[in-house]
Amino acid sequence: MKKIKLRIPATVANLVCGFDILGMAVHEPYDEMEFRLSDSPEIIIKHEDHFGLPEEPSQNVAGIVLLKIREHFKLSHGFEVIIRKHIKPGSGLGSSAASAAGAAFGANALLGNILSKNEMIHFAMFGEELASGVRHADNIAPCIYGGITLVKSPNPIDIIPLNTPDLYVTAVHPQVEVKTSDSRQILKKSISLKSAVEQWGNIAGLIAGIQKNDSALIGRSLNDGIIEPVRSILIPKFDEIKMKSIEAGALGGGISGSGPSIFMLAETKETAEKIAELMKSTYRETEIESFVYVSKINPAGIRIVE
Amino acid sequence: MKKIKLRIPATVANLVCGFDILGMAVHEPYDEMEFRLSDSPEIIIKHEDHFGLPEEPSQNVAGIVLLKIREHFKLSHGFEVIIRKHIKPGSGLGSSAASAAGAAFGANALLGNILSKNEMIHFAMFGEELASGVRHADNIAPCIYGGITLVKSPNPIDIIPLNTPDLYVTAVHPQVEVKTSDSRQILKKSISLKSAVEQWGNIAGLIAGIQKNDSALIGRSLNDGIIEPVRSILIPKFDEIKMKSIEAGALGGGISGSGPSIFMLAETKETAEKIAELMKSTYRETEIESFVYVSKINPAGIRIVE
Repeated sequence: MKKIKLRIPATVANLVCGFDILGMAVHEPYDEMEFRLSDSPEIIIKHEDHFGLPEEPSQNVAGIVLLKIREHFKLSHGFEVIIRKHIKPGSGLGSSAASAAGAAFGANALLGNILSKNEMIHFAMFGEELASGVRHADNIAPCIYGGITLVKSPNPIDIIPLNTPDLYVTAVHPQVEVKTSDSRQILKKSISLKSAVEQWGNIAGLIAGIQKNDSALIGRSLNDGIIEPVRSILIPKFDEIKMKSIEAGALGGGISGSGPSIFMLAETKETAEKIAELMKSTYRETEIESFVYVSKINPAGIRIVE
Repeated sequence: MKKIKLRIPATVANLVCGFDILGMAVHEPYDEMEFRLSDSPEIIIKHEDHFGLPEEPSQNVAGIVLLKIREHFKLSHGFEVIIRKHIKPGSGLGSSAASAAGAAFGANALLGNILSKNEMIHFAMFGEELASGVRHADNIAPCIYGGITLVKSPNPIDIIPLNTPDLYVTAVHPQVEVKTSDSRQILKKSISLKSAVEQWGNIAGLIAGIQKNDSALIGRSLNDGIIEPVRSILIPKFDEIKMKSIEAGALGGGISGSGPSIFMLAETKETAEKIAELMKSTYRETEIESFVYVSKINPAGIRIVE
């Protein structure tokens, strides 16, 4: 019985001014998934973690992806999957995307690489749909491609892999609940042309900075006058953490996904760790538990470890 | 008496989805300016063209720039300038920017390169202010830097020079008047978040395409759902010319500046010339006179020719 083990990274979507289009893979946290191709067509999902996620395949983010792949290719095989999830659901760090992308990646590897990256994304999006009701690729794309990806369009799938700048990411996950539906609803339906033009100056600067490996340009492009001022209200201590992080040397940063996690970019490990410390201590003062992760931008995405 | 002769290129601002932030230098049309540094502090402007522009320095786009430079550096010298303008004022091809940028560039060369590029832009913007009431750098920046430039901010001046893709530009200037003030006023003050997100997906794709030299990505990013649908109403035959150009192989294109000129990008000279032909014949049918220009993207900008 063929077997494979994957490490699937967390991802940061909605990169500041890149709302709904830019995502980035990191190294920490990550999920682990073990896949076995079985001779019976059954799909078995087992969670070895404590998040209480449903294991019934049609109700499981990884399961639904495998069901769709089995259906599409009329497979006589099935899959046995063990998931050890470390990316907490609802963290804003791409937890559902990790399960969905991991399922598509694992199935593809066991079936002899029959899928292109964009086909993996196509199937993985069924998992995002189950998790959030939206077939989006903001987290799945960087998970599958690695590095930083531009989702130019989810349908038809048009993903532009960008350069991977040599930067550190510090992410903090405060243990508060922000529902994706709330953080969607709070957004204004219309914005001023003036603020939109500022935003596309920033997104243009950010893409140029990423492609030129120009940290200073990345830093001065990490501004979001549209989404962040609204969504950050839902995240305790957001402004304080951002201000302190930039004082400590962060290039910039913002909300990860739709929150509540916050991420910051830095040029050195030392700065990234200083930011991690101040994030922890800021939440400690308010008695909010938090988890902090420091890693480089992950250029490879999902990795086969066994 | 020191003397210098410049060739100053036309520029295409508001590159489709790059409204207010992206501009591009071309080779054709271009203005010519001759500069002499004189011992008396007088500034003399002479137009050897037929556009009837004022020659009084404080009322002349080049003159005001030279006055500002003379004032700033407390120069005892003056300048004699002969301008042979071929970029028609009001064409949307950066006519005022050519005079303004040419003046700053010429003065700088005669004074022994005392200005940085951004300082030249600083002074040239006084010319744009005189011409249109707005201190913008959308056309001046590509004139001075060459190639394609991102104006991340005009104040403080933050210009990001981008890669120069190996593409041809066809521009048509139909002889109709579109006032910049009209084409500003016609714009909506607010837009939907949905259309803004589409626009920043396109601008992100366009910047990535330019930096990666990926013509196909440039082509599928040249979409503007916000400005073009409104402004193109003022330009006769816009939709027909765009449709026919794309059928003929154009990667895409749109309004140059605030019009009435239209530009298209193409991968080969053959395609660019085919587009030039269809532009001319389309306007010929409606008895609108038009001028058509074919050249590559101009990587150098202003050039000293003598």
